[in-house]
Amino acid sequence: MRKIADVKFALAVLQWDQETYLPPKGAAFRGQQMATLSEISHQMFTDEKLGKLLDQLSNDPSLNEKQRRNIELTSEDYNKNQKYSSAFVRKLSEATSKSYHSWIEARKQNDFKVFEKDLSVLVDLKKEETQLLGFKQHPYDALLNEFEKGATVQWLDGLFGNLREPLKKLLEKIQGKSAPDDSFLHQHFNKDDQWKFGIDMLKQMGFDFEAGRQDISEHPFTTNFSAEDVRVTTRIDENDFTSMTWSCLHEGGHALYEQGLPTDQYGLPLGEYCSLGIHESQSRLWENCVGRSMEFMQHNFPLMLQYFPQLKNVGAEQVYAAVNKVQPSLIRTESDELTYHFHVMIRYEVEKQLIDGTLAVKDIPGFWNEKYKTYLGVNVPDDKRGCLQDIHWSHGSFGYFPTYSLGSLYAAQFFKHIQKKYPGLTALINKGNYNDIHQWLQTNVYQYGRMYTSGELCNKATGETLQQSYLLAYLTDKYAGIYGF
Amino acid sequence: MRKIADVKFALAVLQWDQETYLPPKGAAFRGQQMATLSEISHQMFTDEKLGKLLDQLSNDPSLNEKQRRNIELTSEDYNKNQKYSSAFVRKLSEATSKSYHSWIEARKQNDFKVFEKDLSVLVDLKKEETQLLGFKQHPYDALLNEFEKGATVQWLDGLFGNLREPLKKLLEKIQGKSAPDDSFLHQHFNKDDQWKFGIDMLKQMGFDFEAGRQDISEHPFTTNFSAEDVRVTTRIDENDFTSMTWSCLHEGGHALYEQGLPTDQYGLPLGEYCSLGIHESQSRLWENCVGRSMEFMQHNFPLMLQYFPQLKNVGAEQVYAAVNKVQPSLIRTESDELTYHFHVMIRYEVEKQLIDGTLAVKDIPGFWNEKYKTYLGVNVPDDKRGCLQDIHWSHGSFGYFPTYSLGSLYAAQFFKHIQKKYPGLTALINKGNYNDIHQWLQTNVYQYGRMYTSGELCNKATGETLQQSYLLAYLTDKYAGIYGF
Repeated sequence: MRKIADVKFALAVLQWDQETYLPPKGAAFRGQQMATLSEISHQMFTDEKLGKLLDQLSNDPSLNEKQRRNIELTSEDYNKNQKYSSAFVRKLSEATSKSYHSWIEARKQNDFKVFEKDLSVLVDLKKEETQLLGFKQHPYDALLNEFEKGATVQWLDGLFGNLREPLKKLLEKIQGKSAPDDSFLHQHFNKDDQWKFGIDMLKQMGFDFEAGRQDISEHPFTTNFSAEDVRVTTRIDENDFTSMTWSCLHEGGHALYEQGLPTDQYGLPLGEYCSLGIHESQSRLWENCVGRSMEFMQHNFPLMLQYFPQLKNVGAEQVYAAVNKVQPSLIRTESDELTYHFHVMIRYEVEKQLIDGTLAVKDIPGFWNEKYKTYLGVNVPDDKRGCLQDIHWSHGSFGYFPTYSLGSLYAAQFFKHIQKKYPGLTALINKGNYNDIHQWLQTNVYQYGRMYTSGELCNKATGETLQQSYLLAYLTDKYAGIYGF
Repeated sequence: MRKIADVKFALAVLQWDQETYLPPKGAAFRGQQMATLSEISHQMFTDEKLGKLLDQLSNDPSLNEKQRRNIELTSEDYNKNQKYSSAFVRKLSEATSKSYHSWIEARKQNDFKVFEKDLSVLVDLKKEETQLLGFKQHPYDALLNEFEKGATVQWLDGLFGNLREPLKKLLEKIQGKSAPDDSFLHQHFNKDDQWKFGIDMLKQMGFDFEAGRQDISEHPFTTNFSAEDVRVTTRIDENDFTSMTWSCLHEGGHALYEQGLPTDQYGLPLGEYCSLGIHESQSRLWENCVGRSMEFMQHNFPLMLQYFPQLKNVGAEQVYAAVNKVQPSLIRTESDELTYHFHVMIRYEVEKQLIDGTLAVKDIPGFWNEKYKTYLGVNVPDDKRGCLQDIHWSHGSFGYFPTYSLGSLYAAQFFKHIQKKYPGLTALINKGNYNDIHQWLQTNVYQYGRMYTSGELCNKATGETLQQSYLLAYLTDKYAGIYGF
């Protein structure tokens, strides 16, 4: 398992380099090199010898609890892999590659029709995949399970259903008030100063620069080659320093999780993150619960002023309100903490209906645009700012989007729990001291790797299953303060 | 072969990252990841199926000349690999690892004795290796052959023998004259300006930044992951801009060679460099023959002044003389174009005698210090500035050093040939125009990969075998001008 991890992490280094430093002409051979490493790790992980070894170890009474769990999870992964014939893997890989290119082209031409045919092929293959993987109730469950073990349509319908109306009412309240001014965020902010400020933020939140680094890429991401080499990236918009700042906090949250995973479990399931939802909870806890709080802003405003003296005519409270401004919009990645979830719910509904056959690929744009009108009250002017905006489907990632909202829900629940446990927390955040948060996350999340499912982890850490009430309370409380209701 | 290359180049990416961007704590797992990739590529290349395939193809009459040569060279490499038992490979790898660490420790303690025992074990294994590999006359030939196919003790004894006395006489002539002033080189030169000037130099010499990049590392090097992704590194000494500048030209010369290799031969011998001597000829041609010429200096002095106005009180001719100053010294990597070869000859003699058993490891320091006195007239004050200065032996690289001098010899012969072919060359260099040089190198060196041995390549390109006379004439001409004799 360690050797397989070595190959997978080597592949991750090549991908990281591709996104950060690769010269343009190097792309073709790099693609080939990555495909070869991917093939090798796949061959290693589907080797019959490994299967036999896992069978033997499954019945070994001398294993301790962690070892048993490692064997159990590895066997699960191994058996799942065996369900895919190499013919199916090839078909899927070809369809994905085609879809990706036609998605790029469709965006260029700003026309979903260019993407339609290849996406249909891909959706049919994903339907086939649900049959291979198996499911109890809804075929989409099989795909959800790939990103969030145990997640089902039944559960998400309930969760999102309970979230939708309260969020809509909250949004209406907010829209009844005057919006905070955020025009001062759109000035020129020097690149080098932004970079330094971002590094300061990462240091402040406890990112270990001896076990990681930050670089620039077109889209921010976090990757890791062990818990002792975790790389984050950011991008800098010289007309808006908030984009870089909160992307640093977001990726930093992901990175702290990876740096906190147990190194002695390198290559084994217990050395891996729990689920995408839990991973996202880590980024959102730091980006939002901590980073968009009044205490954080008060602590960091003097430093902000040092780097960005152009903010001298505003105060910490104004910046706090501005970075929390709510504004229904077309683009998911640019949306605020509240309306974000409508973007996710729309994608969830599209995916669910595509997979169970109640929505045809050709009808996506109409469905999408109608939902945006209903949920967010915005008119989608074209496909590029509509159903072509995200890369996920072109990659064959169906079932991924819901984990973004799950991340916010887990984050709010975890954060409330931390606040209850450490009543002095707010005052400490005001001093830039996050020791209690680190302590809690290490004890309740990081150390376990994949030991528990996200549901089990949440229960163990907070004493209850995931509740929508924490996110609703957190958002209501925040916006009531800012908008005054 | 392409897949094996993919794995080897992936390993090279991990090594490059290790030297440029790896955070310190990431080193341990990175070492493990590189070892795994190395093991995988070794397994792939020693697979019996490959051997059988090569045998079949060796007798295939339908192959064209290039294909035949690829099969022939791959079979050679394959058969050589088969000579090493896995037990021997493991012994060698362990001994190398030990030697490397005791070399580090010996340097810290400034005491060769700390290195002596592990080096002895390594030398014995290298002697065993000469038996495995086989040789006709001298056991050291087997090791030389690894870096420079066809090189022998007999040939190098002749070449170095013919070089030693003339170089010594030239050095005496120079030492009879007053040395040029180079004190103005040792001022403060801003890091960012140096970096930009270095990039300008790489651009000027034709380095393709679409197919490569430059980064910072502790020791400058060139590596490549295909002919379309060639990476150079440099280091910056703020008290001496010449170190960075001529390192850029040196590594740039290596890089142009790699960028010029045929991409359609990726993974095959004809897509690889000819020999280390030829590779070094490319770096030295650009660093010395071009870069340390008066024409180059005249062309670039205005740009130099732009970045480094502190040079305003000197002229192009003074900088030219300063960067060509001859000064016998203790450290190979800091030596000038003339005395450099004495450093190499001393190492050659040590290695030759270690391998044929006429010198014992414990006697290296005495032998070394005596030779430095005789050849260079300098007293070696300690082992760190003596026989512990180079990393090569600790890596088990015996037979490598001579290729440095071969590089200068080939470079001088090639350059003279280019000058004869293009009489307007000097005037063009004065304008920063290197088209003729590119053209000649592409036609006579780059395009062939490993098609010919270095000896054959030299003959084909210049009409004669390697002659010491070109280097001697080049150096005599240069120093006569500068020192006035």
